[in-house]
Amino acid sequence: MDEGAFVIEGPVLVREALVAGLPLEALFVDVTAPADLREAGVPVFELGDGVMERLASTESPQPVVAVAPLCARSLDDLAGATFVVVAHRLADPGNAGTILRTAEAAGADAVVLTVGSVDPFNPKVVRASAGALFHVPVVQDVDLSDVGRVLELPLVGAVATGGTPYREARLGDPLALVLGSEAHGLAGVDVNLLAGLVSIPHAGRAESLNVAMAAAVLCFEISEQRARPDK
Amino acid sequence: MDEGAFVIEGPVLVREALVAGLPLEALFVDVTAPADLREAGVPVFELGDGVMERLASTESPQPVVAVAPLCARSLDDLAGATFVVVAHRLADPGNAGTILRTAEAAGADAVVLTVGSVDPFNPKVVRASAGALFHVPVVQDVDLSDVGRVLELPLVGAVATGGTPYREARLGDPLALVLGSEAHGLAGVDVNLLAGLVSIPHAGRAESLNVAMAAAVLCFEISEQRARPDK
Repeated sequence: MDEGAFVIEGPVLVREALVAGLPLEALFVDVTAPADLREAGVPVFELGDGVMERLASTESPQPVVAVAPLCARSLDDLAGATFVVVAHRLADPGNAGTILRTAEAAGADAVVLTVGSVDPFNPKVVRASAGALFHVPVVQDVDLSDVGRVLELPLVGAVATGGTPYREARLGDPLALVLGSEAHGLAGVDVNLLAGLVSIPHAGRAESLNVAMAAAVLCFEISEQRARPDK
Repeated sequence: MDEGAFVIEGPVLVREALVAGLPLEALFVDVTAPADLREAGVPVFELGDGVMERLASTESPQPVVAVAPLCARSLDDLAGATFVVVAHRLADPGNAGTILRTAEAAGADAVVLTVGSVDPFNPKVVRASAGALFHVPVVQDVDLSDVGRVLELPLVGAVATGGTPYREARLGDPLALVLGSEAHGLAGVDVNLLAGLVSIPHAGRAESLNVAMAAAVLCFEISEQRARPDK
């Protein structure tokens, strides 16, 4: 596998990739692989007993693994985007996958991961995204300072405390929502880069919301405000 | 360890349990355990090299493991509750932990897991809950038919499609929000048990929201409506 490719494991995700129109390069299958995937027009390579175990990233290997060309975009590809989710130095693959799902469900135009974030084509992210990675344009390895400039969108940062309560914030206009890292939030980010800050008031302890949950709440507020510009 | 106890792994969670006032029965530590935990007034048992690896549920064992008495409640203990989150046949420990965090952050009075759900005292749930399990009352192994009757709360079911759009639903009054299983949602639930259904309208594919993300969006809508009864 060259550096310009990534793997998609399991029949469910491979079917999602085919539906999304990803130009799969190859399918590696064992004897238990579903027939429909063998006939999908992608070159099929049969693997002998025990080979899939060495190829797969999980303990319980899947009967089919696809190799797909990387579908990362550049910021320039996102011209005209009006709702972008930016993950800044996000480390956890599960959170990245969940944020991709949230972004898709909330109708975001794209997800951007800044330099130092987890690789969105990491098998764990692909799995956690449940196929969202194949449907939402993804940009990786960019500097946060380039995001707002190239996209010509105000960056609105999500912070645990001290931001405008999210229901009172104006989030229906074009924007890029910036989520911080699990460990440090947006600490270290130049405030001049951000047009505003939003927070989710909540009960319980200070750390009771993680970044993926906050992303879900904020992205659906943005979606709601965009759907009802009169409010 | 008897059946009436569960384990809490790692210094961060053990400290959370102490702050929450859990009457820990014992601490098992290795030589790297932090000094503050050794002096917390809980009986400390030193483990020799390699023993923690066999005790711990994770691949990278923690320097301290606490044993705590189960803190499950019964439905009768929840008298007066006005916001309860019910997970019906929820299977995944990560989802259960995230729902516990969401419930705490949204100010829910309790979390109920029906018969057939994952054990909330499973080490994976304890870990994923990030301490919320120590702060939110939890009831497990009850029948859904008993929940509304004993709590005297209307049950509002979350469904992928066909429910009232959640922003238009009246969710500020006392209620129990019922979340379905990952595989089957609320299929099989007697509709007569439910006072209403809510859905989250979303973009993208049908399965783009999972139950934990839906819980976050719905619980924060409930929290918002409860905070603003005039709206």
